[in-house]
Amino acid sequence: MSDHFPHVPRIEFEGPESDNPFAFRHYQADRLVEGKPMRDHLRFASCFWHTMRNGLADPFGDPTADMPWESGRRDPLDLIRVRLDAFFELLSKLSIGHWCFHDRDIAPEGSTPAESERLLDAAVAHAEGLQNATGIRTLWGTANLFSHPRYVHGAATSDSPEVFARAAAQVATAMEATQRLGGRGYVFWGGREGYSTLLNTDLAREQRHLARMLQLAATHADTIGFTGSLYIEPKPQEPTIHQYDFDAATCLAFLREHGLAGRFKLNIETNHATLAGHSMEHELQVAAAAGALGSIDANMGDEHAGWDTDRFPTDPMLATKVMLEVLAMGGFSDGGLNFDAKRRRGSFEPIDLVHAHVAGMDAFARGLLAAAAIRADGRFARARHERYAGWDSPLGRSIEDGTATLASLRDHARAAPEPTLTSSRQEVLESWMWRFI
Amino acid sequence: MSDHFPHVPRIEFEGPESDNPFAFRHYQADRLVEGKPMRDHLRFASCFWHTMRNGLADPFGDPTADMPWESGRRDPLDLIRVRLDAFFELLSKLSIGHWCFHDRDIAPEGSTPAESERLLDAAVAHAEGLQNATGIRTLWGTANLFSHPRYVHGAATSDSPEVFARAAAQVATAMEATQRLGGRGYVFWGGREGYSTLLNTDLAREQRHLARMLQLAATHADTIGFTGSLYIEPKPQEPTIHQYDFDAATCLAFLREHGLAGRFKLNIETNHATLAGHSMEHELQVAAAAGALGSIDANMGDEHAGWDTDRFPTDPMLATKVMLEVLAMGGFSDGGLNFDAKRRRGSFEPIDLVHAHVAGMDAFARGLLAAAAIRADGRFARARHERYAGWDSPLGRSIEDGTATLASLRDHARAAPEPTLTSSRQEVLESWMWRFI
Amino acid sequence: MSDHFPHVPRIEFEGPESDNPFAFRHYQADRLVEGKPMRDHLRFASCFWHTMRNGLADPFGDPTADMPWESGRRDPLDLIRVRLDAFFELLSKLSIGHWCFHDRDIAPEGSTPAESERLLDAAVAHAEGLQNATGIRTLWGTANLFSHPRYVHGAATSDSPEVFARAAAQVATAMEATQRLGGRGYVFWGGREGYSTLLNTDLAREQRHLARMLQLAATHADTIGFTGSLYIEPKPQEPTIHQYDFDAATCLAFLREHGLAGRFKLNIETNHATLAGHSMEHELQVAAAAGALGSIDANMGDEHAGWDTDRFPTDPMLATKVMLEVLAMGGFSDGGLNFDAKRRRGSFEPIDLVHAHVAGMDAFARGLLAAAAIRADGRFARARHERYAGWDSPLGRSIEDGTATLASLRDHARAAPEPTLTSSRQEVLESWMWRFI
Amino acid sequence: MSDHFPHVPRIEFEGPESDNPFAFRHYQADRLVEGKPMRDHLRFASCFWHTMRNGLADPFGDPTADMPWESGRRDPLDLIRVRLDAFFELLSKLSIGHWCFHDRDIAPEGSTPAESERLLDAAVAHAEGLQNATGIRTLWGTANLFSHPRYVHGAATSDSPEVFARAAAQVATAMEATQRLGGRGYVFWGGREGYSTLLNTDLAREQRHLARMLQLAATHADTIGFTGSLYIEPKPQEPTIHQYDFDAATCLAFLREHGLAGRFKLNIETNHATLAGHSMEHELQVAAAAGALGSIDANMGDEHAGWDTDRFPTDPMLATKVMLEVLAMGGFSDGGLNFDAKRRRGSFEPIDLVHAHVAGMDAFARGLLAAAAIRADGRFARARHERYAGWDSPLGRSIEDGTATLASLRDHARAAPEPTLTSSRQEVLESWMWRFI
Repeated sequence: MSDHFPHVPRIEFEGPESDNPFAFRHYQADRLVEGKPMRDHLRFASCFWHTMRNGLADPFGDPTADMPWESGRRDPLDLIRVRLDAFFELLSKLSIGHWCFHDRDIAPEGSTPAESERLLDAAVAHAEGLQNATGIRTLWGTANLFSHPRYVHGAATSDSPEVFARAAAQVATAMEATQRLGGRGYVFWGGREGYSTLLNTDLAREQRHLARMLQLAATHADTIGFTGSLYIEPKPQEPTIHQYDFDAATCLAFLREHGLAGRFKLNIETNHATLAGHSMEHELQVAAAAGALGSIDANMGDEHAGWDTDRFPTDPMLATKVMLEVLAMGGFSDGGLNFDAKRRRGSFEPIDLVHAHVAGMDAFARGLLAAAAIRADGRFARARHERYAGWDSPLGRSIEDGTATLASLRDHARAAPEPTLTSSRQEVLESWMWRFI
Repeated sequence: MSDHFPHVPRIEFEGPESDNPFAFRHYQADRLVEGKPMRDHLRFASCFWHTMRNGLADPFGDPTADMPWESGRRDPLDLIRVRLDAFFELLSKLSIGHWCFHDRDIAPEGSTPAESERLLDAAVAHAEGLQNATGIRTLWGTANLFSHPRYVHGAATSDSPEVFARAAAQVATAMEATQRLGGRGYVFWGGREGYSTLLNTDLAREQRHLARMLQLAATHADTIGFTGSLYIEPKPQEPTIHQYDFDAATCLAFLREHGLAGRFKLNIETNHATLAGHSMEHELQVAAAAGALGSIDANMGDEHAGWDTDRFPTDPMLATKVMLEVLAMGGFSDGGLNFDAKRRRGSFEPIDLVHAHVAGMDAFARGLLAAAAIRADGRFARARHERYAGWDSPLGRSIEDGTATLASLRDHARAAPEPTLTSSRQEVLESWMWRFI
Repeated sequence: MSDHFPHVPRIEFEGPESDNPFAFRHYQADRLVEGKPMRDHLRFASCFWHTMRNGLADPFGDPTADMPWESGRRDPLDLIRVRLDAFFELLSKLSIGHWCFHDRDIAPEGSTPAESERLLDAAVAHAEGLQNATGIRTLWGTANLFSHPRYVHGAATSDSPEVFARAAAQVATAMEATQRLGGRGYVFWGGREGYSTLLNTDLAREQRHLARMLQLAATHADTIGFTGSLYIEPKPQEPTIHQYDFDAATCLAFLREHGLAGRFKLNIETNHATLAGHSMEHELQVAAAAGALGSIDANMGDEHAGWDTDRFPTDPMLATKVMLEVLAMGGFSDGGLNFDAKRRRGSFEPIDLVHAHVAGMDAFARGLLAAAAIRADGRFARARHERYAGWDSPLGRSIEDGTATLASLRDHARAAPEPTLTSSRQEVLESWMWRFI
Repeated sequence: MSDHFPHVPRIEFEGPESDNPFAFRHYQADRLVEGKPMRDHLRFASCFWHTMRNGLADPFGDPTADMPWESGRRDPLDLIRVRLDAFFELLSKLSIGHWCFHDRDIAPEGSTPAESERLLDAAVAHAEGLQNATGIRTLWGTANLFSHPRYVHGAATSDSPEVFARAAAQVATAMEATQRLGGRGYVFWGGREGYSTLLNTDLAREQRHLARMLQLAATHADTIGFTGSLYIEPKPQEPTIHQYDFDAATCLAFLREHGLAGRFKLNIETNHATLAGHSMEHELQVAAAAGALGSIDANMGDEHAGWDTDRFPTDPMLATKVMLEVLAMGGFSDGGLNFDAKRRRGSFEPIDLVHAHVAGMDAFARGLLAAAAIRADGRFARARHERYAGWDSPLGRSIEDGTATLASLRDHARAAPEPTLTSSRQEVLESWMWRFI
């Protein structure tokens, strides 16, 4: 094992009262919750791009992050290995069992496709060794189809089919890398699949191209025997002014239109949900109602910022709402909680990587415990059940089963008294929620 | 004909230089544009609710609108008739050929369903006479399922099936009224079909109930022989915190999930589009790409207001973008441009109703002329065609027709040079647009 | 004492584990915190407008609130009294020690100014008796200068000086009523002091008129011997498209420009802060830094709604942040925590008034305890102190005391090594905050 | 003269019907408008940072801009010169008479302060020669106090006074460079002067430090005899979560608090105005009403993007509203219209720099002509005058001159009839505006 975080011990659980910054106050991997260990409920992953490759530059400033492990190294293979070493050391010390990556995070683009593939191959080989040594697994992989200038007008939705071909090549290779690393899933985030202006855009044709890419990818997965889940990840905008995968409902409309509904699930990210004008729990419920809730990018936005801030999710109330949905669907199958989160630009010391992950893990551990307590308490479930009890009456059933007609319902209404309604008690329910935090 | 706007003459076209506030400067009903009269391209409608029934109250203030025709009248039937008289007089003077209504706009709710039906019947009978006398037609009708306290928790999505039955009765009766008035369409706007909090909401069950209502309505239309179009109208929120028909894509996802995709089209409103985070042209293109662009609520929002302002659409650039989409789909079939717009609260004089409609009609006439000029010029179409020309190459066709695979495309990419891209020229295109205004 | 809430007992503290919906789980009026009873730290007030006069209508729907005490009453004086009776009964049962009102809440506008004054006089007389009987005090009063149609173009900023005069009359009378009731303060919320469009607005002249109203009010206070605090209340928009008192900084700019800075403090409302694009703690700090933090309207908005939702503040984290600022300034002088909050439209039962206030009071009690714990712990204060320690060095002092110049600092910088910076540890601080909830 | 834009001729006016992409359709530098040439009314400037140094990277992608003049060059001095050569060639061909710069745009930061100063000195010397050769002048200069990692926690508001000293050194040197280049002004944009979280921020102390920097800068200007205007530039957020110079009113509050009100004017940017929730004309009027409207950053945002897009201002209606305010204050003194605008990332060809500036210049020329036509027409001025005519009555005057009191106004109101109000005619006014485009 490398020693790039020399002063960081393995983080252990010490309980809520601990003042040790290198201890969990809530996360206890083996603790059973609803009969399953916390580690399996939460299935934490860290992402290579923010944790290892994000220098914390922003549109107005240069990188600030201190990454001593890179110091003095120039050779691409050397850098590939040292970053992976530091990353797996960090994850081991944090007891994080999974990771996620883009192809271009773990290996840089070469000057030719062949060189890019060679570099990626070396990275995968090194990662494989580290996975074997540590037991850490790949949650999902993906291809970066948005950073290179060739994707300026989109990847699958570029005006150039040559660019589509380059993107297709990257997807094929990234999926194979994911398979080789035993990845549980493969994600499509359409960072450039959208538009800057409709004045020059053939929206319908571009969306057909996007669907084609997904169809080809699904076929490729079958061909190579990749059995992990395939996901698309909604985001409303940024970098483009409008992205085709705006939110969960938009993705579902698209998947249904193009016959992809059973084949792709959704990877829902908190900050993307809120940028689209939804709460995270809304997006999770929309996906879950369609049987399409696959995996979660656990981060959070800033209430007053109109861009993707990817903050670490330090809010236990948010985590509670997320975990309620995860528990409601019976837990993750292939998915997990990926910290698609970056430290603030002012948190530039290596140790902040530790602090930020610990903060996120503790918030989610607290959220899991609160969610389980809410379920055990039963109050919310009972209140919801009672609220809709009328629908289990003969009238309700006749509507749900389709035997009523507008005319028969009109006859009913003409004869019936004014319906009796009860308060929806929102203030009480809001107050109840906070009992469990 | 009544004389409730005694100082208002019939508005005639006088040309762009006219200073007469009671003249059109751009709208010339008979002028042929692309071989069809302006009146048919634009198919203007005024809505009874804002024009006749909106006293211009807001959440912080009482009504301000001066409605002298109501003065001194108390009898419901008398009020029903005088409002319709004043409305048809106004539309006649404005040469607006269509109107839209909710059941509860033209007749108040009675103390029993039977009385409500009787009042509505009287209103429809009176409106029928006015339609015959003036040649004005019904663009679409709808039922108000959001104002009465019984709909506090939703109509089709209420927690009470008794409320669903009341809503069903209203829909049946309102659709029959629309049919009797020769309406070209019938609209569902789900003002209360959403939630205030997810803490007490069964989102999936409520959405199934909403789908059931639409299925029942479609069946009812078939049963009674109503051949007009059926529409749902997206809106992201307000009055509820989150509405199920958030935007066009969300509605399409919903219609596809519930087997309603061919049966319902969309009625797209500008201010709803912008509140959802989209441009109006985006929503129109999403609907049109799915063959579901039915009708348009022509208004506009305020860039910095987070609520529905329903301003009259006085902006010719907005109108140009709308009309480009309407012309692109070959014009309206059953749909039209309904001014779902209200005067500002400070524009409380009767004459402001005239000014506001004239402003909207002139803006759209200008927009139609600009859109036609853009199409005749051909520059935008050519630029778009050239932009995607690569997709008509063998490589592009192999992707579009599904003969390529990720593997074959990777082989291609490995051998091909770096793709050549060209500028998307957004600044030039934006500048071009303004040539036509 | 009246008995309009017959099944509601006096709410008592039962502790965090209580399941009694008619008990406080956190609010314990006599509990000492930093040596002062909770009741004095929090100084809760309920507002007459939302609690008694808000029927829960919204722009799309009729009132839903059930107000049985009004049932069958028509006589204005009778209604005035019964509402006040019910209100003081409710406050007594809730142990809320203060209330706030607009003139037109407690008494309706009459058909003449004289009649309005008579009605208000009767209301004040009745309220005086109830205050004496219960010990409940007036936190602040105000005049409603936004609901009547005459204020459609503004009150102090109307285009008509006759409207200014009417507003002036209301302010004089409302201030006298407040004085008679022993009010601790008087508030100006400029609901219509702004514009709908700049196309017809003389912004500078209107703002001078607004300043004049405040100057006259301050003089009137001196004349009548009203010694309570005067406040203005920022809000960015709604009902107007843009209000002159946009946010705390805008109010401070205005007060400074017009020589009113020492005379008026600010009444800061959470939902107004967030609509302006700020966090509540930001607005509180801006006001406090200027010595102008007077009083607080305790409510909360909805993260995804672009209008004023005035939700009851059920969030203890928000309350913690508020109470940290209140404690930091040494507590309220004349101000307090006024629940400028309304139940959701679906919470229409009388009992929801009880639940909603209990939820808000418990959240703030929890917030007060958390804030005190944070202060006792000292971690945040220490971290902040250490962060700025460099400013207590000779270099820092030379800048703060004005002895340094750009030239001398340039000389220093030329010779000094690159500054050493430390992480701002945001993730750790966020995580710490949740320890105290 | 260099030849880095070999195929670009000098752009000449050819009239609205021209199809020549290398011609102005509206901008005619010598055309007299209200007795002054267009060039003087508009006083266009281009900014070095976007035009020459913005590679069009975004947070999700690498630079795309093709900058052939940089090709093959590595030597810093060589790059400094060739960029300036290309820039002045471009401005000459575009007939743009002014430019703006940051110190670090025209010369990179060196490894020591001394080296940075040497590089800047070389850049200024070269720019001086180009200014002399072309007649192009400096509109304003500024120091980049936000890109370097040392400014991660702010510059004047850093937690470290050593950083303040570095910033002070940069300001002193950049102001001297601006003076040497005959700059008409010097700007402070506080890109990092704000916070990421209040949890670790001493807001009041940081703001005092910011005020100190401005005081020192004003003194330095006096010391060195720099007679240009000093400006601060409001922006609500980005890169920080909250910037101290949020909007015009916030800046005015700050300037007034710290005794800087007469010394600093505002540089107002369109996209910053809209991000703060204001229209551009609002911000201009707020600044103008305080006698503080100095200069303008002419760009525009995207209605649905929550970040600074800095689009070229291609919208003549926006330009009309801007120019109405500029004409209303009698034109710029030291200020001008600086295109603080960047091409879209997809407009990466050198020629797009030409197209984008031509589009912006033509939009503003059209705006100037429309604004002048509106003023000549007189309709808006008359309507506004008539609207407030009541304020010139005895009652109005008694309020404005302070002779009335609340009591005297109450007496007046008690005796006066209900005020008569007239419609504010917003729809008519909006429609009128479009006559002039």
